[in-house]
Amino acid sequence: MKSRFEIIGVGMYLPPKIETSNELSNKINKSEEWIVSKTGVLERRVSDIDVDVMGAIAGQEAIGNNEPPELIINASGVPKQVLPDTSVFIQRELNLDGIPSFSIHSTCLSFITALNIAASLINGNQYSRILIVSADRGTKGRNFKEPESASLLGDAAAAIYIGKTLKSKGLISYSMETYPKGAELTEVRGGGTNLHPQDPKTLPEDNLFKMSGPKIFRMAFQKVYEKIQNDIKTNKLSHNMIDLLIPHQASIKAIKAYSKYGGFTEKQVMNILPKTGNCVAASLPLALVMAYKEDKINKNSIVYLIGTGAGLSIASAIIRI
Amino acid sequence: MKSRFEIIGVGMYLPPKIETSNELSNKINKSEEWIVSKTGVLERRVSDIDVDVMGAIAGQEAIGNNEPPELIINASGVPKQVLPDTSVFIQRELNLDGIPSFSIHSTCLSFITALNIAASLINGNQYSRILIVSADRGTKGRNFKEPESASLLGDAAAAIYIGKTLKSKGLISYSMETYPKGAELTEVRGGGTNLHPQDPKTLPEDNLFKMSGPKIFRMAFQKVYEKIQNDIKTNKLSHNMIDLLIPHQASIKAIKAYSKYGGFTEKQVMNILPKTGNCVAASLPLALVMAYKEDKINKNSIVYLIGTGAGLSIASAIIRI
Repeated sequence: MKSRFEIIGVGMYLPPKIETSNELSNKINKSEEWIVSKTGVLERRVSDIDVDVMGAIAGQEAIGNNEPPELIINASGVPKQVLPDTSVFIQRELNLDGIPSFSIHSTCLSFITALNIAASLINGNQYSRILIVSADRGTKGRNFKEPESASLLGDAAAAIYIGKTLKSKGLISYSMETYPKGAELTEVRGGGTNLHPQDPKTLPEDNLFKMSGPKIFRMAFQKVYEKIQNDIKTNKLSHNMIDLLIPHQASIKAIKAYSKYGGFTEKQVMNILPKTGNCVAASLPLALVMAYKEDKINKNSIVYLIGTGAGLSIASAIIRI
Repeated sequence: MKSRFEIIGVGMYLPPKIETSNELSNKINKSEEWIVSKTGVLERRVSDIDVDVMGAIAGQEAIGNNEPPELIINASGVPKQVLPDTSVFIQRELNLDGIPSFSIHSTCLSFITALNIAASLINGNQYSRILIVSADRGTKGRNFKEPESASLLGDAAAAIYIGKTLKSKGLISYSMETYPKGAELTEVRGGGTNLHPQDPKTLPEDNLFKMSGPKIFRMAFQKVYEKIQNDIKTNKLSHNMIDLLIPHQASIKAIKAYSKYGGFTEKQVMNILPKTGNCVAASLPLALVMAYKEDKINKNSIVYLIGTGAGLSIASAIIRI
């Protein structure tokens, strides 16, 4: 066991407002059939409340009747605002005062990165209970002139509450790789010092998502394949010992590749994309929370989290629940 | 020792372009005397290159002739752009491929947060060498209608390269607290989902720094004082055992408070504000790098990093060099 921890609570927030692909089709000038066949997304949620409030609802459910957290880590893709970081606003919504909070950002992989860091801090006896929250509102940054990414994005929040344990549970393995030659394959170029909102050169589309799905798939395919082989071998596992593989819900093609080429059965691979879309950093923990709620995993399950994110980065974590 | 590590390299980048407070005075409609007496800043640097390039210059100096890093952590305040996170672009500038990189964000305290995380990861045998880079270009977000914060902000980058050690060196203590009732005392409200750049309600000043220096000082004063007493007592230290106290360079009043009220001599407190201003997250590691270069610290020194950041957060770390 790399770092011991126990999941003591999970929570999620799916905005009540559903946008079907039929409703979206007019906005992006594509048919419902085009959207569904291209992206696999039948519907996505659109949030009217901001990421901090969404995250706090999920966080509150995860805390439940447990003792309050000693640390909050925000592990989202897009922030509420530039300063302060979103964790502060999540903490404010949770009515918690005086505990530390900060953000970890590796785009769609923020949750895997945060889970490894939280596990390391718990294992090093710095904290007993850490709340990890991922909340994203990708629909705010949709570019309707880019129909594929506009069809993919959806809003959601999820929270995982982890605590110290003496049991043999927690992180079996974790690894991440970043390949900056893919930096421009997924971008929101604005919002920072590069193309500042007040810069006259900044174009409206600089503040919106830009995703080159097929190029990402081509660049990532072999690397993800090798990571799976390596993770399985290094940890002396076999494919059938993985109770559930939870991929980042990047696209239907990416999700299906885990069963089509990755050596897993379709039943082993969590696929929530048709009903939620790609919820940026919230997709991975949301799928984990839904797996709990749907009884797809239980005590002692081995869960394999894996995905690609803007960067281009690839990360994976094998956990024993 | 909480987490062992050794500093194996340090680097910095100060943009060549100097803006004196005399030059700034016209832009903010205040006299040079007003700026100097109010903020203590005589001059600041203004960068023509972006945060990733600035950070990579500092990072390259820190790496020097050492082996390349196994992980890059970007620990800055304001990003280059919304996605991907700035670490990817720093890695690209450093010509490194395949190592992981991600960002940690707790505004002006990002470096202290990142140092604790990096130390924990090294101590847990996940990595042998981690490069922490802080690069900020606060002058891009100055609001000239808010003369105090506009006078304070300056641009800089700094990098600290840490590695595994068996010696009794590294993090003696670390702690952080966040008080969200101070969330609105330091803000850049735009750039995210709250006041999105494309939102017609977003005003130009929403994309610029807003800082209420006197209110932050009032809210933080007692809490920082108690943190110092607690850090000294808990770690069985005395004030004179601290070789150098490196505060975040928030304002001249905040820096002077450490000697005026905090129990340290003026010589014990690193003050680089007059020549660099408040460089957001880069201030703390920049002051640490300058302390190295000016031989203010050497092998075995005990250094006390402390500061306040947007949140309102307070963090401190005691390290043995």
